[in-house]
Parts: sequence; structure tokens; C-alpha cells
Amino acid sequence: MNKIDTVLANSTQLLKKKSLHVIKIGGNVIDNSENLYHFLKDFEGLDGYKILVHGGGKVATQIAEELGIEAKLVDGRRITDIETLRVVTMVYGGLINKNIVAQLQRFGNNAIGLTGADGNFIRAKKRPVKTIDYGFVGDMDEQSINPQNISRLMEAGFTPVFCALTHDGEGQLLNTNADTIASALAVSLSSIYETTLIYCFEKKGVLLDINDEDSLIREIDPEHYEELKTRRIIHSGMLPKLDNAFTAISCGVKAVIIGKSDDLGQLKNNQPFGTRLSKNA
Amino acid sequence: MNKIDTVLANSTQLLKKKSLHVIKIGGNVIDNSENLYHFLKDFEGLDGYKILVHGGGKVATQIAEELGIEAKLVDGRRITDIETLRVVTMVYGGLINKNIVAQLQRFGNNAIGLTGADGNFIRAKKRPVKTIDYGFVGDMDEQSINPQNISRLMEAGFTPVFCALTHDGEGQLLNTNADTIASALAVSLSSIYETTLIYCFEKKGVLLDINDEDSLIREIDPEHYEELKTRRIIHSGMLPKLDNAFTAISCGVKAVIIGKSDDLGQLKNNQPFGTRLSKNA
Repeated sequence: MNKIDTVLANSTQLLKKKSLHVIKIGGNVIDNSENLYHFLKDFEGLDGYKILVHGGGKVATQIAEELGIEAKLVDGRRITDIETLRVVTMVYGGLINKNIVAQLQRFGNNAIGLTGADGNFIRAKKRPVKTIDYGFVGDMDEQSINPQNISRLMEAGFTPVFCALTHDGEGQLLNTNADTIASALAVSLSSIYETTLIYCFEKKGVLLDINDEDSLIREIDPEHYEELKTRRIIHSGMLPKLDNAFTAISCGVKAVIIGKSDDLGQLKNNQPFGTRLSKNA
Repeated sequence: MNKIDTVLANSTQLLKKKSLHVIKIGGNVIDNSENLYHFLKDFEGLDGYKILVHGGGKVATQIAEELGIEAKLVDGRRITDIETLRVVTMVYGGLINKNIVAQLQRFGNNAIGLTGADGNFIRAKKRPVKTIDYGFVGDMDEQSINPQNISRLMEAGFTPVFCALTHDGEGQLLNTNADTIASALAVSLSSIYETTLIYCFEKKGVLLDINDEDSLIREIDPEHYEELKTRRIIHSGMLPKLDNAFTAISCGVKAVIIGKSDDLGQLKNNQPFGTRLSKNA
């Protein structure tokens, strides 16, 4: 290479965004200590920057029951009253989050357990009361994220582990959907990193036949997605998940992968993992 | 100033350690929301780097009772069995810690709530079983602290808020005395920062007469301390606290202040606050 080529190559290298994986796990991983162990080991093994977002699991419900706090439902919708907020702050922010951190540290990953209040990373808005008062629930989108603060934490060598809590900036913690947190983080941080968003759930990915795990669809691009919807192949429960995923992609996320937590190790080994959604399949 | 003087002055400035306050609060502050509010506002107002360490408070006992977990005592010593560890992980690491963080954020302080597992900041050893099995209790000293990791977090712009939990590096969280955490943090970080350790408690400081808050002793140096001990002026309950404080000072901490949380604001205003222990009064 001559000098100019070298300079250009170096600039491209410098301009190339670093890779980030934002990975969300739910109750099906958290409630099973063996699944969780294997998932966290695989998570630790992934190269590049990474962020873990975890939901609740059954333990919050169990502890609420033991404390005599009844689940509040209005028109079938779950309400986060002040008692329930206390329980989820204890269970999500304390019990689950800090045990995940201790496990990740054991595997050599320099994890830090967080709510959205920590580092002012996620500032949400208490859901306005219309027909239903949802209580201490936080609504948010990618504008609620502070990507510079999160980036500073990662560049200092730490791996953020977020539970499903945010704050309003006025001292109030808020219960917030973990899927929403994960996708907002991915969209917001795609301004700094080349970001892949991974949703771990109980199936291997998007299936042609919901009862046949071998019918996994490996890749879907927007055109293919429209076709699958028209042919009514995609299961109705998957539609909001996939709509949100393609929205995230149109907002800057490189790819969204939907897969089984057990299979995350395949990503490290460059084997296909789950269903990969991207602009160009 | 001539050139050499300017260079020397700049070098001295560079060599001068930055100031750090490590402040410990206990149940008497945490259990009273008004006290806590004022303390956190004063904490936010302090200049320089700062670390908050908080103990438990009555809420852990209350929640344990509500969950039907009885306090385990052996020979009058409190035992942390696995059920109690779950409760303190929820209450210290979740409920108390994250609410303190949300309050500090409200006041504009960029706090991050931590256990010793986060960032591998504090790695303790499970207390060996001799005559008593204390359960999941972590023993530690300044060697257990990772000052580089904590400094990286602070240099990235965050204020660490530690609860009284550590880990063993093998995935196990451990219940650990908050006073011990605070003094170990102060000693360890004195290699990087000019560190002042502050213990907030219910009295104004070290009193000549325990029943007279006006009998506050403003400053004690080692010589004066020996004299006070000889004259049996210092209350017996204060002796271990003061012994530990002078040990911390002999290990590099610039000063230890023992005072009332309500009065912390005086520090900001350069007014005398509590009893100041140092090498040279």
C-alpha cells in the first residue's frame, strides 16, 4: 500500500463503528437457574461491547404473594401500585439483577447492575392516567436514553446489566417493559455503535409452523416480511414483536435476532442463530 | 513567576491528589425519609469526588418479618442464612439503594447504585466457620477493594453508591458490614485520592459528656486520643470506632470525621462539622 492508501485504510478503520450486542432475556431464562447459568456463560463469551436487559420472572409474583400483596388488575391490565413498585424494585433491581452480576463476574465479565435511574441512563415518563391508572409505570422510547452516559460506562470497561426499572428524573422509580428498554437502547446506541438487538425467548426463532421447531425461518427482510404477513404465515402473537423489530432496523439498528437463549453460543461460533431480521437478508 | 517557577507550580498541581469524600450513613438516616432527603441534598452539594456507603435500616427487618423469616441468632450473634441473604439483597441492593440513586439523580448527582459484585469492586471472603457459622457474611479489608476499577467509574463521571453487599468472585453475594466497607474504600482509594472518611451517626460527634451535645470535641489527634483514653473520657462504645478511624489514618486516609448527618452541609460551607480525627489536629 502507498501512503495515501494506508491513511485511507486507517481512517476507514477509525470511522467503522464498534460492534454492540443488546440482548434481552425474559422470565423463561431467569426462572431456570440451569438455563440462566448457560446463557450467562455464553453471554460472557461474546466479543465486542454488550448490554444485557432482563425482565422479571416468577419470583416477583411469588414474593408479592408472600408479602400479601395481591396482583392488581383493571380491565385485565396489570397495575403497578406503590406496593407492587416496592416489590419489583426489590426483586428486579436487587435479587435478580445483583445475582446475575455476581454470576457474570464469576465468568470474568465486568458487569454492573443497573436501573434506568443509575447514571441517569433512562429517563421515562409516568404513564398519563386516561381511562386506566396504570400506577408507577414508565413509558419511554429511544429519546429517553442517554447514549453518551452509557457509552462512557462501557468505554470505562464495564458491561451494563439493566433490569426493567426506569426513573422520571424527579426521584421516582418506574416499572417499565423490558422489551421496550432493549429496543430503545439498541436504537439510541446505534448512533455510536454498530448495534445488533437480540431477543431471547422460548422458541428457536420465527417458525413457519409454530408446532415444529425445525421450521425455523433463518432470515427475514422487509419484503419477505410483507409476503409472510400476506400469506398469514406469521403467528399473530409474533406480529407486534416483528413490527417493533423492523421499526428498530429502520431507525438504525443493524439487525434484530429472535432466538432461544440456549443457542446464544452459536453466535460466538459464527453459526446461524435464531431468526435474523435485517434490511437485506 | 519565571518559567521554572511556573513549571514547578504546574507539576505540584498535577502531583496533588484530587479530593475524595467517602461517606457512610446508617439506619438512623435511612429510616427517616426527611433526614435522608436533607442528607442527600447536602451530599450532592459537596465538591470533589465522593462515594456514599449505606447500611440497612429497619425495612430489612420488617420485610423479613412479613416474609415469615425469623432473625437467626447464635450466641447473640446475627446469622445470615440463605433466606436472610435474599432479603438483604432485595432490600439493601434494590429497595434502599435504587431509591437513594433516584433521589440523588433528582438533585443532579450522577449516582450509580452498587454492590461489591458490580464492577468487581469489592471481593470479600465468606467468613470461615469456627465455633459459629455466620452464614453468608463476607469479611474484607482494603486488599479486597479494586481501586482502579472504582477510579475508572468516578473518572467517567459517576458517583458510586454502595450498599452493604460484596461478592466472593465465585458467584456468591455476601452480607458485609457497611462501616468496614467504608473504611476499606477510604484506605484503598487514598493511594489515588486525598481521602476523607466520614461516618454519619446519631450524635454530633465525639462528646466529652455523652448526654451533652454541646460537649463536642472538635479535633482529636493520636496524642490527644491516648490522653482521652487514659482519662477514660471516651465512651466505651466509641472506642472500636475511633481505633478503626486512627488505623485508617495511619494507612493513608487524610482525616476521619464523625458527625451528625443533619450537619453535613456545614462541610460545604467550610464550617466545622463533627469531630475531626487526623494525624495533626
